[in-house]
Amino acid sequence: MTQDRILMAHGSGGLMSQRLIDEVFKQAWQNEIMEPMLDGAILQMPAGRLAMSTDSFVITPLFFPGGDIGKLSICGTVNDLLACGATPLYLSTAFIIEEGLPIAELRLIAESMAKTAREVGVKLVTGDTKVVEKGSCDGVFINTTGIGIIPEGIDYRPPRIQPGDKVIVTGYVGDHGLAILAQREGLTFSTPVVSDCAALYQLEEMVAKYGDAIKCMRDPTRGGLATVLNEIAVQAGIGIRVKEAAIPVAPAVKGACDMLGMDPLYMANEGKMVMFVAAAAARDLLFDLHQLSPTANAAIIGQVDAGPSGLVLIETELGAERILGILEGEHVPRIC
Amino acid sequence: MTQDRILMAHGSGGLMSQRLIDEVFKQAWQNEIMEPMLDGAILQMPAGRLAMSTDSFVITPLFFPGGDIGKLSICGTVNDLLACGATPLYLSTAFIIEEGLPIAELRLIAESMAKTAREVGVKLVTGDTKVVEKGSCDGVFINTTGIGIIPEGIDYRPPRIQPGDKVIVTGYVGDHGLAILAQREGLTFSTPVVSDCAALYQLEEMVAKYGDAIKCMRDPTRGGLATVLNEIAVQAGIGIRVKEAAIPVAPAVKGACDMLGMDPLYMANEGKMVMFVAAAAARDLLFDLHQLSPTANAAIIGQVDAGPSGLVLIETELGAERILGILEGEHVPRIC
Repeated sequence: MTQDRILMAHGSGGLMSQRLIDEVFKQAWQNEIMEPMLDGAILQMPAGRLAMSTDSFVITPLFFPGGDIGKLSICGTVNDLLACGATPLYLSTAFIIEEGLPIAELRLIAESMAKTAREVGVKLVTGDTKVVEKGSCDGVFINTTGIGIIPEGIDYRPPRIQPGDKVIVTGYVGDHGLAILAQREGLTFSTPVVSDCAALYQLEEMVAKYGDAIKCMRDPTRGGLATVLNEIAVQAGIGIRVKEAAIPVAPAVKGACDMLGMDPLYMANEGKMVMFVAAAAARDLLFDLHQLSPTANAAIIGQVDAGPSGLVLIETELGAERILGILEGEHVPRIC
Repeated sequence: MTQDRILMAHGSGGLMSQRLIDEVFKQAWQNEIMEPMLDGAILQMPAGRLAMSTDSFVITPLFFPGGDIGKLSICGTVNDLLACGATPLYLSTAFIIEEGLPIAELRLIAESMAKTAREVGVKLVTGDTKVVEKGSCDGVFINTTGIGIIPEGIDYRPPRIQPGDKVIVTGYVGDHGLAILAQREGLTFSTPVVSDCAALYQLEEMVAKYGDAIKCMRDPTRGGLATVLNEIAVQAGIGIRVKEAAIPVAPAVKGACDMLGMDPLYMANEGKMVMFVAAAAARDLLFDLHQLSPTANAAIIGQVDAGPSGLVLIETELGAERILGILEGEHVPRIC
């Protein structure tokens, strides 16, 4: 491309748009479904339950320790599909780009998306590119929308959760939120904090063998673990009791949060899953989770009670019990 | 809601986000698929070909003669699915909202989306809401991604176009682009110019009865009619000859374009379709199009030749023939 920055004409829908798509996106993502360049992708699907999930990514900065907006945009939607019990198959991608963005950055982002999609086994099948004037967006915003097939026998929904079920979180909480905050504020710690940004595609096959013992899964992104537990307690009409001492937090994150007066239970994660599982299967599942590197620090953090309905109670490290509320107000903005 | 403007906390993923979703979006869009508020929608689908299309909308101003960003965000993606030959079924919606946006405006937009979706018969089944700081986006950007089923026997693709096929456009071209430009620049004309923003869902059933006589459809949005004709000429490896005198342009649009030195063939449309159809079916199809109000001004504007491959030639009103090129550079930015 002769230009090295995005111009308004790259969003015109004409010749410059075509060149941008050909030289940046198609080059990174080439596949036979996107190739005909129709108004949409044509996909052969089997009959059954389809999951559909959408997310826009507005994270700042665009590149951060452990990932970038491109990787994040694939992982976020893939993890949402996995939480629905679906095998992620196809993603659409839509870019809103600020005039002046270096095309080299856009290329890095597109390549990062391609790499992550290849790992996961999803295809980027259709897309859209818009350009807005300098100052009308912040660098680049990406939407990905994904679809996947839910295999027979898989049914992850809050109403299936019952008293006695165990609550598992698949690893350290708060890494992503703290990594973004630290980079943005120029904070450095003796042990660097890296985002957990990852697509948990390896979970799918492993978890499927537990059949209906898995009741519900959700990825604790914005609002953190505490917010997701509260959402599910309300949606399932159950109470949740967790033990603070059982919740895995990386030492560096714990130290930094203590220093900054922040709570890792409200910090965003981008490569974690909260799982509700029948008590009888919990220990075997935990053993299996420990065999996979993205879930090596998984832990049983609590259990489900009949009530108080819609409430999450936490037993603190000092042995007291208190309500763990949903995130109120604002925490760290634009972390995804 | 106690606030009347969007705050950063509305994008936190916590309590304020839930309230915004409950009080603005769910209230406007309520349906049984969205209700469980999972990480995605669960949809029962038949086996077959699925079309998937995505578009982000960054139009300014948010409200314009003939529509608003909400209506446009439904029509745009629905028309793309129709162009793929699909019955539009489900849409995801993702909002990026600027801090400070009046919540009343957001509510108008959500209601406009609901109204348009009801008319078309599509459901808004899953969504996402992000908030960015004042100055980091411009009002609100909306992504919609749609899926639909392509019925047996429908196959709209450029490679099916053959020499001798006729080219139809379903109505006046350039209305949307000119309406936006006029509003933005404060231009007034003796006959007001109104956007053609519309979802062409009535076309589906009517067109389906022509079976494989319909070769290809595409909606001429950004870049206008001229750009879409060029894209298809290249993708189909054929030549296209159109007659300038046959292309329907509303008198007010023609007058304004002459005055401003703009060409309506490059102006955006948001409720039109370009159709390539077997010559034997063209007159009957045109007759049927004239019975529907959104396509009442449809016209046969030209035909397909074996060559010159990839080129669009236009016979001007003076009888000369020239190349009608793809849009180069920039035209009217942010019209969709």
